[in-house]
Amino acid sequence: MYETYWKELGGKMDFTITGCQSLSYFANTKNLCWFLEPKLEQEIRNLHNNVGNAIVENRHVIVGTGSSQLILAALFALSETLNDPNPVNVVSAPPYYSSYPEMTDFLRSGLFKWAGDAYTFDKDEPYIEMVTSPNNPDGFIREPVVNRAKGMVVHDLAYYWPQYTAITSPADHDIMLFTVSKCTGHAGSRIGWALVKDEKVARKMVKFIQVNTIGVSKEAQLRAANIMEIISLSCQRSKPRELANFFEYSQNLMVERWNKLRNAIKNNELFRVSKFPLQFCNFTRDFTETYPAFAWMKCKEGMDCEKVFRGHKIVTRSGKRFGSGVEYVRVSMLSRDEEFDLFVQRLSNIHGIGN
Amino acid sequence: MYETYWKELGGKMDFTITGCQSLSYFANTKNLCWFLEPKLEQEIRNLHNNVGNAIVENRHVIVGTGSSQLILAALFALSETLNDPNPVNVVSAPPYYSSYPEMTDFLRSGLFKWAGDAYTFDKDEPYIEMVTSPNNPDGFIREPVVNRAKGMVVHDLAYYWPQYTAITSPADHDIMLFTVSKCTGHAGSRIGWALVKDEKVARKMVKFIQVNTIGVSKEAQLRAANIMEIISLSCQRSKPRELANFFEYSQNLMVERWNKLRNAIKNNELFRVSKFPLQFCNFTRDFTETYPAFAWMKCKEGMDCEKVFRGHKIVTRSGKRFGSGVEYVRVSMLSRDEEFDLFVQRLSNIHGIGN
Repeated sequence: MYETYWKELGGKMDFTITGCQSLSYFANTKNLCWFLEPKLEQEIRNLHNNVGNAIVENRHVIVGTGSSQLILAALFALSETLNDPNPVNVVSAPPYYSSYPEMTDFLRSGLFKWAGDAYTFDKDEPYIEMVTSPNNPDGFIREPVVNRAKGMVVHDLAYYWPQYTAITSPADHDIMLFTVSKCTGHAGSRIGWALVKDEKVARKMVKFIQVNTIGVSKEAQLRAANIMEIISLSCQRSKPRELANFFEYSQNLMVERWNKLRNAIKNNELFRVSKFPLQFCNFTRDFTETYPAFAWMKCKEGMDCEKVFRGHKIVTRSGKRFGSGVEYVRVSMLSRDEEFDLFVQRLSNIHGIGN
Repeated sequence: MYETYWKELGGKMDFTITGCQSLSYFANTKNLCWFLEPKLEQEIRNLHNNVGNAIVENRHVIVGTGSSQLILAALFALSETLNDPNPVNVVSAPPYYSSYPEMTDFLRSGLFKWAGDAYTFDKDEPYIEMVTSPNNPDGFIREPVVNRAKGMVVHDLAYYWPQYTAITSPADHDIMLFTVSKCTGHAGSRIGWALVKDEKVARKMVKFIQVNTIGVSKEAQLRAANIMEIISLSCQRSKPRELANFFEYSQNLMVERWNKLRNAIKNNELFRVSKFPLQFCNFTRDFTETYPAFAWMKCKEGMDCEKVFRGHKIVTRSGKRFGSGVEYVRVSMLSRDEEFDLFVQRLSNIHGIGN
């Protein structure tokens, strides 16, 4: 979706690496996260400071092969630190990211297990709550819901960037996860990072990545660092004139797409999408709504929404997958322009079931 | 270690990627391995065909974040395919790669568990045998040792390249693992690949990588493809004159280092290294010994070899870690020139315990 931004920058964004660069497993043997490129760490810290969306002081930065690997690393680290003979319960409030159950259970780990709906979790046992904010799939700002003793929380803040929502304050949690994929659009790089307060937990997360993949691709780290450097520069007052502010540019895209979507269904009684409150964004210094990366659409009660959409050649993911009902579907708002326009066009042609 | 080769190539090996390239998670939606860059697949097949070290026809190519991820993917795929309620036994003949036990057990998976020494495995239960050939740590050519019913084998062929050993025939096994790190020296890229015969197993390996890291960095894949392309070119008769045959160049380095090592300990009765048989290499069309990436050194019975070496400021990994005794240590033969020369120098200064 952000392709045009990067295209317009043209050759200025080319990233080159020589044949003899980055041969080693190691990036910085003095760092707790020994495979983290120093330049990437610096650009991560800079970008957070420029955007004001997370506290980076006294935090360990841990790079991962996308934030997926970091979610697993966090589950591993927290459950190992707990050192309980039974697997720790992993919960999240529905609708939750559809991959959480599978990621948690696919290796049948004895360290952690998926325990489902955070709203109904009432066991007197240790648990890890996954809090995604803004939430995937529905875009709402979230806080932990269990709030019991023996609780640990992982904050997945992949979408806490100005193009999606108001930056109301710098996030300040024990474990915060981010990813280049949702921030800059470079999903193919597989670069995510965690900001971690506790050193012991940070060390165990590093351990997980070490055993799992012996670190993270240096090429991807160095290119991500370059991209983040440009984005930080684009937010400066003293930026080059031809360099558009990345977050303004991408927020405009999101606003435009959400307007098209809302417009396409405004006279349609079959389905609806949520409205989001206006909030003051400290980054843009203006009031803004949330413009989520996904549209979470609700059809009429009892309707199998995925099926209806499929009948109109619209590929969605059913609400079932997110711990909700079949009357919900999730649709990506970050597809390519042509694809998105086709989606909106097909959507506006749905006037009744079977039509 | 191969740094000088890549340095001498200079600007010819620069790899450049534009800002808007490889944004997507997907590389080729029509491929079973949907995150594999087509150019990398092609260069992998070319290189194997040029070197003659593995059969690629009718094999699925699966890319991983280093071969570590592929080892885990293989364990996952084989045990899931088996669909047994009990965890499958994972075994290997000592001395085995020191990471196998940890990789197998670190998540306390219910799918597979470390069962240790393959030589003594006699349970009437399903098992997966890890066969590394040439072997890490000791460099010997290996075959499966259990050979019972209900057995599955993963061949880790990371070192089956002409700089390390004679290529006697193209390997032809169900699951074969390779890595850029040992072939070209680019460990920092974290690119490995598997050649897999069975489609069902291949699909499950892809599934593992999808849930674990949603694919593999595109930058690293594309750069690895470039590097492998150059190596393939360097093996051609019609190669540019200034381009040295990579495998000849790196084999010469290995021979030189092994000569230095053998020379440094030839009059020393405290420790010894194995000799390897001469074999005809179909790639170089000449007889050659094995020149392993590691030296597996044996001290006098009862001596704690790691401790002795540490006393002389030589960092090694104790034989214990590989399922063998403390009288063994593993030393890397792939360090940088300065480091290797320092190691040999310190080694030749050891004349007795405490000296």
